[in-house]
Amino acid sequence: MNTFGKNLTLTTFGESHGPAMGGVIDGFPAGFRIDFDKLYEEVAKRRPGSSALVTARNEKDFPEFLSGINPDGITLGTPIGFIVRNVDHRSGDYDEMALLYRPNHADYAYDQRYGIRDPRGGGRSSARETVNWVVAGALASQWLESQGVTIQAELSQVGDIVDDDVFSDVMREGTHSPILKVSEEKKREMHDLIKKVKKDGDSVGGRVSCLVTGLKPGIGGPVADKLHASLAQAMMSINAAKGFEYGIGFKAAASYGIEIADRFIAPEDPNGRILTSTNYSGGIQGGISNGMPVYFHVAFKPTPTVMRSLETVDKEGRSAILKPAGRHDPCVAVRAVFVVKAMAALVIADHMIAEK
Amino acid sequence: MNTFGKNLTLTTFGESHGPAMGGVIDGFPAGFRIDFDKLYEEVAKRRPGSSALVTARNEKDFPEFLSGINPDGITLGTPIGFIVRNVDHRSGDYDEMALLYRPNHADYAYDQRYGIRDPRGGGRSSARETVNWVVAGALASQWLESQGVTIQAELSQVGDIVDDDVFSDVMREGTHSPILKVSEEKKREMHDLIKKVKKDGDSVGGRVSCLVTGLKPGIGGPVADKLHASLAQAMMSINAAKGFEYGIGFKAAASYGIEIADRFIAPEDPNGRILTSTNYSGGIQGGISNGMPVYFHVAFKPTPTVMRSLETVDKEGRSAILKPAGRHDPCVAVRAVFVVKAMAALVIADHMIAEK
Amino acid sequence: MNTFGKNLTLTTFGESHGPAMGGVIDGFPAGFRIDFDKLYEEVAKRRPGSSALVTARNEKDFPEFLSGINPDGITLGTPIGFIVRNVDHRSGDYDEMALLYRPNHADYAYDQRYGIRDPRGGGRSSARETVNWVVAGALASQWLESQGVTIQAELSQVGDIVDDDVFSDVMREGTHSPILKVSEEKKREMHDLIKKVKKDGDSVGGRVSCLVTGLKPGIGGPVADKLHASLAQAMMSINAAKGFEYGIGFKAAASYGIEIADRFIAPEDPNGRILTSTNYSGGIQGGISNGMPVYFHVAFKPTPTVMRSLETVDKEGRSAILKPAGRHDPCVAVRAVFVVKAMAALVIADHMIAEK
Amino acid sequence: MNTFGKNLTLTTFGESHGPAMGGVIDGFPAGFRIDFDKLYEEVAKRRPGSSALVTARNEKDFPEFLSGINPDGITLGTPIGFIVRNVDHRSGDYDEMALLYRPNHADYAYDQRYGIRDPRGGGRSSARETVNWVVAGALASQWLESQGVTIQAELSQVGDIVDDDVFSDVMREGTHSPILKVSEEKKREMHDLIKKVKKDGDSVGGRVSCLVTGLKPGIGGPVADKLHASLAQAMMSINAAKGFEYGIGFKAAASYGIEIADRFIAPEDPNGRILTSTNYSGGIQGGISNGMPVYFHVAFKPTPTVMRSLETVDKEGRSAILKPAGRHDPCVAVRAVFVVKAMAALVIADHMIAEK
Repeated sequence: MNTFGKNLTLTTFGESHGPAMGGVIDGFPAGFRIDFDKLYEEVAKRRPGSSALVTARNEKDFPEFLSGINPDGITLGTPIGFIVRNVDHRSGDYDEMALLYRPNHADYAYDQRYGIRDPRGGGRSSARETVNWVVAGALASQWLESQGVTIQAELSQVGDIVDDDVFSDVMREGTHSPILKVSEEKKREMHDLIKKVKKDGDSVGGRVSCLVTGLKPGIGGPVADKLHASLAQAMMSINAAKGFEYGIGFKAAASYGIEIADRFIAPEDPNGRILTSTNYSGGIQGGISNGMPVYFHVAFKPTPTVMRSLETVDKEGRSAILKPAGRHDPCVAVRAVFVVKAMAALVIADHMIAEK
Repeated sequence: MNTFGKNLTLTTFGESHGPAMGGVIDGFPAGFRIDFDKLYEEVAKRRPGSSALVTARNEKDFPEFLSGINPDGITLGTPIGFIVRNVDHRSGDYDEMALLYRPNHADYAYDQRYGIRDPRGGGRSSARETVNWVVAGALASQWLESQGVTIQAELSQVGDIVDDDVFSDVMREGTHSPILKVSEEKKREMHDLIKKVKKDGDSVGGRVSCLVTGLKPGIGGPVADKLHASLAQAMMSINAAKGFEYGIGFKAAASYGIEIADRFIAPEDPNGRILTSTNYSGGIQGGISNGMPVYFHVAFKPTPTVMRSLETVDKEGRSAILKPAGRHDPCVAVRAVFVVKAMAALVIADHMIAEK
Repeated sequence: MNTFGKNLTLTTFGESHGPAMGGVIDGFPAGFRIDFDKLYEEVAKRRPGSSALVTARNEKDFPEFLSGINPDGITLGTPIGFIVRNVDHRSGDYDEMALLYRPNHADYAYDQRYGIRDPRGGGRSSARETVNWVVAGALASQWLESQGVTIQAELSQVGDIVDDDVFSDVMREGTHSPILKVSEEKKREMHDLIKKVKKDGDSVGGRVSCLVTGLKPGIGGPVADKLHASLAQAMMSINAAKGFEYGIGFKAAASYGIEIADRFIAPEDPNGRILTSTNYSGGIQGGISNGMPVYFHVAFKPTPTVMRSLETVDKEGRSAILKPAGRHDPCVAVRAVFVVKAMAALVIADHMIAEK
Repeated sequence: MNTFGKNLTLTTFGESHGPAMGGVIDGFPAGFRIDFDKLYEEVAKRRPGSSALVTARNEKDFPEFLSGINPDGITLGTPIGFIVRNVDHRSGDYDEMALLYRPNHADYAYDQRYGIRDPRGGGRSSARETVNWVVAGALASQWLESQGVTIQAELSQVGDIVDDDVFSDVMREGTHSPILKVSEEKKREMHDLIKKVKKDGDSVGGRVSCLVTGLKPGIGGPVADKLHASLAQAMMSINAAKGFEYGIGFKAAASYGIEIADRFIAPEDPNGRILTSTNYSGGIQGGISNGMPVYFHVAFKPTPTVMRSLETVDKEGRSAILKPAGRHDPCVAVRAVFVVKAMAALVIADHMIAEK
């Protein structure tokens, strides 16, 4: 229902315009010292209004931790409860939406599912929920770093501006600390496109690339809890996600077996780790990590809210026109970068804790 | 670990060359009459040796049902246990593999995870496991049909032969019984390519397209159990899967918001269902079905086993050459069609039972 | 870990002397109007200092609801998050306990489990946690009442003062609205004993009796989720619980089959419900309710904290004397009455929602 | 539904008179060598007809293992599937029961729950199901023994014949290898009583005592997964169980705090383990083991089937007389000894694996 994970779990709550968002993180390792400055910094990145490219809604997004951490900032092994208050939401902006079903939003589906919904800002279906994930993911990331695991995520496509070289580094044999890098030129072009789209009152889709390094071999599950299946489940849970691929991804369908066979390479040092000559597999074989970098893409649709009148229906099923209102990101993928990173951290930590 | 689903669960077991595969289906609705002839027919389609395009390994794959169904073939609401015996496996073919790590296989990852593995035919990591899923999926499909839900799956790409029109039917407003159709010409070309690849001792990737019709609105979960996230998790669990996309999928990244807004359409009949003018959303909004057809793609890599010597390492980490042996499908996507269909049935039924 | 239930779940957090207790209730039915006055009243009953018999620690225990309920007080079907702030806790009282292991407390076991613990007031192991359960149970109780199910709980034993007639009403055929009643004389005697024990600086055990009426037949699970097994699990989770019995309970061991056979009685009205002539079964057969009243006992040990010096050891394993400090209930069973009732409500609602 | 445990899970299936019972054990540690002779011996003890005191139904109860164990008898870490065929069941004995609701049986409750049931021998509600638990428990026991943990269980009461000294050994400070011992005289008296009851065509209740030794401190969960709550849940799942108590149990209600405070004792050897002077706590404090022996009682009602005509109703709700038929144990507690032991092993192993 509202719980992610099995060994490290995150149970969340919160409507976009209710009193608060929040969650409970259970299974977090005991005795780990949290770096709160770093954590707040990470959470701030996701925040609306954090750059010219995202909605101006101003939320402090300052999580209050209520349990599971002692006064010295050390985890107790008990559940970590936290809340993030909702502020500055101008719920008046959304009055009409209470009555009309917004195209490509969850309004109609929720009414069919529950018979009731909080129409203010999308209620539970709002991407506001992802603040919970980013808080929990930031904690998981700190623990992962203490275990030598690093997660990088970048925007690698907006509209028809695409950087397809972001993973070139992960294909080189033995590259254990590869960098996920988007060319500065592509970044500029993506930035310009988003600004143009915003000016037009339209929105645009995008793609986030993510790279996990430092993961030792043997992490994952064999059948129902394959590591990449857990990643797929988590990434597709992010608002507006439409596709997930890892390793060679959809190009696999057009590939040949001999061409993409990742040959195992004997370590020079007899105590060394076995590597592969290439990494089409994406660091996972049979659902379990093989020690090579893990990498994947997530595709996001354009923000469904646009500054244009759209035909729709009201709750009684009568034709209506939805007029533009509210303030929204022209490109959800920009902020999704931080959500992808957070969810990847939760999934990887969940599987690592399972193996302990 | 080895359990799929939450309300309708499938817990499986079995090594490829052990005594039997099998599983327990729990949560299946009581009082439903199983059509066994239809079920055996469905299971037979997945079987190796069922066409010229797949491996010749001859397995009867005849499931024996051990519980949960009374002598009249009616479900009792209690768990349905079943087994499928393993026969004709020529385990001698695999002797060398016990010592060498096969490229792109799970051998090395399993050894790192468990410290032990059954090397015969890949053991637990073999696609043989999917026979369990097809048995359970065939039961779920029958129940879904009694609820008006139909699932279609087809091979829509092999190598560079692609049929991109398979979902054209699902974009038309109000089309509730669309057909998933691959052109006969493309089918022939895919067939020819697979035969050529087999002759070359190589293997090739492919893509499976799946369409779910008749699903009423309101099925799915809002946050951690989004319907499409469950589908992604299930599809990525299938052996060799590398990517999942639903609705507009990866093309979403290159799309604009106004262009792909699925407008809601008022029903002519006041008691009629609300539809959308287009279906870029893929029948799911906010993780919950909206009553339009659900459709998605799954990409599969080429079979990792090829009839070519490959460099690799042995269990001691020393360089070695893996010589070709065994009999394998040149294109796993051919048989994956039936596995995709089965897993889709399990996921949809799981979510429908949750709403009951 | 910290989650109760399967279909209606309660995930909790909080250390006794941390910032707040709290929880997330997931799976609560949508569209139900909460009576907040009644809810606060129910929560207040559990509160320390609510009578002369319990500890004087003054906590307002006023839950703040953060989500899942709209401004009109109607549930949304989404998770209900809530917190209860911790106030007036005088953590100085507990300084010595950080270093010494209190007899019959969880201090030593926690240190062995986690390697760290919050020593202030017992941290996570404090009965303070049960405020979360009482909040959630009060919500569940309101919903149960709307479904015709009522839960009663009473203190029926303190030390050697025992009322063994509390369930006499539930054995009469067809009694669908029996009352759980403790004699006024026994109540007075129990009250006097507790006051005496408190004056002595000692503590005393007790027993809580609970009665569930109005439950329709067919609620429960057949094997791993038997209704009475879920009740046992929930009741034994309450701090200081040492025993659980339902129906005839431990007296079953000394009974004969013919003597305690609950004969089924044909309804006079052909549409009427089948009842039983007696109710030794306790309203549950094979793990599933049969429509007769459900009743059970829970035994509680004396509060482990007493106003007497006790030999113990410190964290380094050296002998030490624990001197009395803090303020505590002389008889935990007094307040456990409300916790038993809350947990019973959660379990019954969980099973009822599963059947829907 | 039909799954026990969280980290070590047992999912079972089977109707008493269907083709087979069976289950899937998931999460069992890899690399452990099974002693099959010992296992079959353990399973045989539970078998009907294994002594003069139990029903004569002759079942071989020979489990067939289908996966998860390699040809050398070593576990693979993958799920262990097994089946136990049902034989010699004379289903004709039960014809009348298909139409009549047997008093104190689950027939009526099942019909209310599922609308259908397998009437032959009680179907899924039969104690035949416990053969699955004994098979799984025997595997768990072997692993526990390799970890130094031993489980003993004995019949300590039949009717009014009670041995209340069985746990005297566990109260002595530092006793790490106590013995659970029922006096020979009481054994004889219990034996005689059961034979008399059988001759009378009646049945009698009983109590099983269980002792777990060698458990290191720190095993269990703090709130929702308390070790004793898991034990209670498992024990109350056993057919005919009516009560559970651990440590001082129901006597706690009549006890005083100073009297039953288990004082911690400093180890003589500084590296030694901290013990307690008494063990009223039953080896568990705050839901987590403290290293002292764990002990508990389970009460069982008399077998509901008796050789006497009983008034009841049929499926249409009309009065009827149930005539005696079939063969049954006069005292289910006799065979429950082995089920208690098996379930204790599963629970303890589940919690130990969680801590690993």
